[in-house]
Amino acid sequence: MLLEKFKYAISQCEFSKHKAILSKVLTLLENEGPEGETILDATFQETGRAWRIGVTGPPGAGKSTLVSELASWFADFGMTIGILAVDPTSPFSGGAILGDRYRMNSITLHPQIYIRSLATRGSSGGLVPTANRMADAMDAYGADIIIYETVGVGQSEVDIVQYADTVIVVLVPESGDAVQAMKSGLMEVADLFLINKSDRDQSDTFKNNLESVLELRHGTIPPLVIKTVATQRVGTIEVGEAIKAHEKLSKETGLKDMRRLARVDFLLRSALHRAWEKKWLDKNQDYKKQALAVFEKKISLYASVQNILKNTAL
Amino acid sequence: MLLEKFKYAISQCEFSKHKAILSKVLTLLENEGPEGETILDATFQETGRAWRIGVTGPPGAGKSTLVSELASWFADFGMTIGILAVDPTSPFSGGAILGDRYRMNSITLHPQIYIRSLATRGSSGGLVPTANRMADAMDAYGADIIIYETVGVGQSEVDIVQYADTVIVVLVPESGDAVQAMKSGLMEVADLFLINKSDRDQSDTFKNNLESVLELRHGTIPPLVIKTVATQRVGTIEVGEAIKAHEKLSKETGLKDMRRLARVDFLLRSALHRAWEKKWLDKNQDYKKQALAVFEKKISLYASVQNILKNTAL
Repeated sequence: MLLEKFKYAISQCEFSKHKAILSKVLTLLENEGPEGETILDATFQETGRAWRIGVTGPPGAGKSTLVSELASWFADFGMTIGILAVDPTSPFSGGAILGDRYRMNSITLHPQIYIRSLATRGSSGGLVPTANRMADAMDAYGADIIIYETVGVGQSEVDIVQYADTVIVVLVPESGDAVQAMKSGLMEVADLFLINKSDRDQSDTFKNNLESVLELRHGTIPPLVIKTVATQRVGTIEVGEAIKAHEKLSKETGLKDMRRLARVDFLLRSALHRAWEKKWLDKNQDYKKQALAVFEKKISLYASVQNILKNTAL
Repeated sequence: MLLEKFKYAISQCEFSKHKAILSKVLTLLENEGPEGETILDATFQETGRAWRIGVTGPPGAGKSTLVSELASWFADFGMTIGILAVDPTSPFSGGAILGDRYRMNSITLHPQIYIRSLATRGSSGGLVPTANRMADAMDAYGADIIIYETVGVGQSEVDIVQYADTVIVVLVPESGDAVQAMKSGLMEVADLFLINKSDRDQSDTFKNNLESVLELRHGTIPPLVIKTVATQRVGTIEVGEAIKAHEKLSKETGLKDMRRLARVDFLLRSALHRAWEKKWLDKNQDYKKQALAVFEKKISLYASVQNILKNTAL
């Protein structure tokens, strides 16, 4: 039923008109209903067209404001934008003070923009696969741009943006500690570093320091540092242009394919782990016996793994 | 070689004297050298005696100061303490301003205390299994108490403390947002909530709010909220007493066994996932073909998983 409706919505190519259907599909995917797989399985050929942008950084850095500004900027070119907020403190997820929410209204009502938040609770299948499945649905539905917003501290959050096509880290001039707190994997993979709220003191010093750290980095495309004041729209056009430039360069250098292959690899491994576990562990009495034996110190964890592997013909 | 030395160190029961050997074992485990498994496999019977305490919370909440105070408090009773800091912003990990480090010195030099930081980078086998293996070594070596310190935002960090015996969340009176940002799993599992820096305004309001939220929680042992000012040693004795009371109650109610069985289950599954992947995926040409086919949109992710499972006799 929903699959037919979704296929119809995809075929119509009218982003603003069928958001309610997209919304139902996303809810299904978030709740990991069995129909979700069927829908994605039937529409996977429609995916891959959207450019996926991961935006991450510490709480309070102004990620949501930047995402709003970027979405408006892309919309002005006639593009369609899906936003997926995986950050419980984001105004998009309702975790904001009133002033923020007011500012968000202009984009939440925009016909070319669709916003969705993903609660981190209850994603038993893993946050990264769930976020990716939801992005796939947005992609099939017709989003030209998909923006993930996550808090850049936990590994799952980092994994989401890490497999995006363009990775943006938003910092503030006082972010010295936050840079340390961030997973080094993220510092190594990010394409754009934004120093937001850069009307504050020390933004130039921080920019210089960050740039000298980044100089040591090796990669296909050198990262860029841009100063912004998102609330006053300072630097946001430059960020938009930088994303477009990065997209072009990514396609030319093969970075795009490299990242997308890595994304497939990650998702395939996650899906296999889950399938293996479902197929074997949960219904297997031997597993429970082994776990109990480890708990009771009758056997070591390593010996137990060897036992289970021996009984599993791989 | 190292195994023999470690066994000797364990047999001597002199916590202060063989820290250098423990240190070498921990480095081996952190780097996931093959000898590490052998060592743990040969000493697993020596583990399980330490009481493991997970301390987590947002950056700047004062976790390290609290951990120092608690460690000193336990040491005064003649106990031995291992601290494992999995927080790159922790003074224990070197991510601190000078004043903090100075304050830490008194405990870093204490004969009954051993401090180790775990870099989050490069734990390819997963942060949680690595932290647990390192804690196992500390446990076998003779620590009565093991304290994990982590930043409570990412899922891995939460998983570390979640499987501890006593789980402590450190907040500050202004932590409203941080509570939202924290994984709900953590809010549901924590045993003690500390409102640190509670000489600040609003600490009573925050305490009341937190307590009314926690009243809704169902669990074996009701959680406790304690106000502290760790830098002035206000409330830290109360925290120590609360940990001892929780340990006693955990043993009586069976919560201890429940958590430890859950820990074994988690670690066993992780180890199996890793073993499966190693045994099958990496050397299998079929996997690479399948991943490439998904990348090229010749086949859906789900169909690919089914194909691989079909070729894998489970």
